Amino acid sequence: MGVLFRGILALLPDMTIRETDVCVEGNRIAAVGEVPAGFHADTVVEGKDRLLLPGLVNAHTHTYMTMFRGCADDLPFAEWLNGHIDPLEAQMTAEDCYWSTLLGNMEMILNGTTASIDMFIYTETASRAAEECGFRTVLTRGLTGPEGGERRLNEFFGEYEAWKGRCSRVTFALGPHAPYSCSEEYLRQVADLAREKDLGLHIHISESKFEQNLIRQQYGCTPAELLDKCGILGPKTLAAHGVYLDEADIALLAERGVSVVTNPVSNLKLGNGIAPVPKLLEAGVNVALGTDGAASNNALNLFRELSFVTLLHKGVTGDTTAVPAAEALKMATVNGAKALGLAGCGEIKAGAVADLTVLDIDKPWLRPRCDLLSSLVYCARGDEVTDVMVDGRFLLRKGELTTIDRERVLFEVDKTCKRLGLL
Amino acid sequence: MGVLFRGILALLPDMTIRETDVCVEGNRIAAVGEVPAGFHADTVVEGKDRLLLPGLVNAHTHTYMTMFRGCADDLPFAEWLNGHIDPLEAQMTAEDCYWSTLLGNMEMILNGTTASIDMFIYTETASRAAEECGFRTVLTRGLTGPEGGERRLNEFFGEYEAWKGRCSRVTFALGPHAPYSCSEEYLRQVADLAREKDLGLHIHISESKFEQNLIRQQYGCTPAELLDKCGILGPKTLAAHGVYLDEADIALLAERGVSVVTNPVSNLKLGNGIAPVPKLLEAGVNVALGTDGAASNNALNLFRELSFVTLLHKGVTGDTTAVPAAEALKMATVNGAKALGLAGCGEIKAGAVADLTVLDIDKPWLRPRCDLLSSLVYCARGDEVTDVMVDGRFLLRKGELTTIDRERVLFEVDKTCKRLGLL
Repeated sequence: MGVLFRGILALLPDMTIRETDVCVEGNRIAAVGEVPAGFHADTVVEGKDRLLLPGLVNAHTHTYMTMFRGCADDLPFAEWLNGHIDPLEAQMTAEDCYWSTLLGNMEMILNGTTASIDMFIYTETASRAAEECGFRTVLTRGLTGPEGGERRLNEFFGEYEAWKGRCSRVTFALGPHAPYSCSEEYLRQVADLAREKDLGLHIHISESKFEQNLIRQQYGCTPAELLDKCGILGPKTLAAHGVYLDEADIALLAERGVSVVTNPVSNLKLGNGIAPVPKLLEAGVNVALGTDGAASNNALNLFRELSFVTLLHKGVTGDTTAVPAAEALKMATVNGAKALGLAGCGEIKAGAVADLTVLDIDKPWLRPRCDLLSSLVYCARGDEVTDVMVDGRFLLRKGELTTIDRERVLFEVDKTCKRLGLL
Repeated sequence: MGVLFRGILALLPDMTIRETDVCVEGNRIAAVGEVPAGFHADTVVEGKDRLLLPGLVNAHTHTYMTMFRGCADDLPFAEWLNGHIDPLEAQMTAEDCYWSTLLGNMEMILNGTTASIDMFIYTETASRAAEECGFRTVLTRGLTGPEGGERRLNEFFGEYEAWKGRCSRVTFALGPHAPYSCSEEYLRQVADLAREKDLGLHIHISESKFEQNLIRQQYGCTPAELLDKCGILGPKTLAAHGVYLDEADIALLAERGVSVVTNPVSNLKLGNGIAPVPKLLEAGVNVALGTDGAASNNALNLFRELSFVTLLHKGVTGDTTAVPAAEALKMATVNGAKALGLAGCGEIKAGAVADLTVLDIDKPWLRPRCDLLSSLVYCARGDEVTDVMVDGRFLLRKGELTTIDRERVLFEVDKTCKRLGLL
């Protein structure tokens, strides 16, 4: 199948927006700039009033929690977690996870997101959901231990082995949950397994003051130092949150080549604060952008996250040049792809994987077009998205979902929420 | 003309969302709950998957600046103001202001906003724009002095007198710009005129550290104390920003009955910081919500502002119950109407003015509907808005603008931007 995006404004790897032709053949971008001789387009997307972006990458979420949206907002943290989220998770079945994941994938696709890395409790239904709907996902099973730690690892590796070679869009990483929920020994075990199997690692780190204090009490060091001691930190590690990273932590993460995903909305909502993103960028850390789960956000909309990440750090540092729009957009695209280990994703260039998002930019709030990239970060709402392609296949075409039965998903989610007493 | 919103979920004054019938007759809500005998509906809006809100109120903006969107982002503050915004304003004509205001009004209508208070440089074209497009607006002319202060007052009162009794939607307030841009004497003069003419007052206050320091140096007090000394503070005064208000300032504003409008995005973008909104609420101050102008935001979308105001203060105070969703929604509706002196606006109840917004809530990101009010504040993007009514008249109906020639406005704005070298 050949797809031609004809005369379309496109965000190119140098972060300029220029009008060009983009050809897709199979699951790859065959050419940018000139249509190759002999290229046949089955589908032509006309570029008038359209903008082509690399598909956005959600570098931290828990999509299975999407059905918990709005179930416990504006509450004290302990009440939110112990009184609502934990008991709900305990009642959740694998099938519930499947429908909740589809709801989340649907929301992400509608908002121009093409890939996510997810920490799940039921990896097997999450992978099925992603395979069926065409989304790209890196799956981890949240690992805590020692209690139940072996069981969780076995569940994970069972799924990992079962999916080997089955679907290039569904890949796996090891997900030790956090420094405070895994013992030192368990962390070492998981780190060893990651090296042995050449798998990525995804872990929460320095999310809260609570964690910072606890690890200091238990180990006399910071969470980053503990993880380093256990062998968790490396170039295939993606650390989520990092709100309480100090200067030494940042230098350590930079040295180890760790990627950090910032989740500005979630960190605000849960009262954790604001991550030192400008300092991470300055240290050369690869910073990606994530929504976290719908229970702590409540949306899975990276356009909203873009505006928060570009605005927040200006406000708290007093530096109006902090996290400029282009930097924010990199976080949500090429940095995200790198953080997830998605080779060939995140940029519009010949040979890249065809994960693409088309926006209708004929909107009053994007006019005048003095600086379209800036408007995208400061003004875009998400509804500008008309088409989303993953691996060369349209998951959204002219505003219509092509792979997800919207009504069925909403019906099943409501059914589960009624069973759980949420509706 | 009678309009019936039939079996629609509506946000009621007690901040609950309930299914009801709402009847509009002329420019008023005739009934909520039961359709009165003899009520004739020319138009019926079916309530299935719809939510009726009081029209949102933008309590601080400069709509004439909408054409400056994206023209100078991510720059040091002085370069932004002196190198771009001020020189552009100096070249702007009254006609430019007219088209830029229509662009802003259009954006606000599309995002469910029905009223704004605006600080202008060309009041006459701004009032014409609002009259023609059906928007509700409180107009001020930015007053600085003594230099040119008399001229600006004369311009303002000329326009004010010319509009007396002409259009109930277009009202006026006095707009002394800020403590640092008006002399003490000029502030006293404007305060006296406000009392004499029974007019409201709208002023920037404690927006930046720069202002705080300058006023301390010049007067040995805080901006709020200075304004109080000059007679500016009273129940018809709306103070914008208030980022650097201290405890004593907050107590003073509360005592004087001043309304404060917070502009979270603008305060972040310009590196000014975060206003003490939870403390203002605790002190009983009427707090409203605003976008500020498009040069410092860059959107005029109160749904985005809602998510910022509910999230920011949780993050910076560590209190996850700070500014709950219902409180944020009050700021954007009933508090805003009170701040603008719009009697009868901001609530859905019998006898109220029919300024209303309808949302299509059949959206995956608003599901499940565990807490629709929460989803509205945390997740709504603005594109859910299908219908907007001001003073009983639809300005947006089934997604279509009824009073604004969209293409003409975009054309004229682009023309001006080209003349100003922005495009």
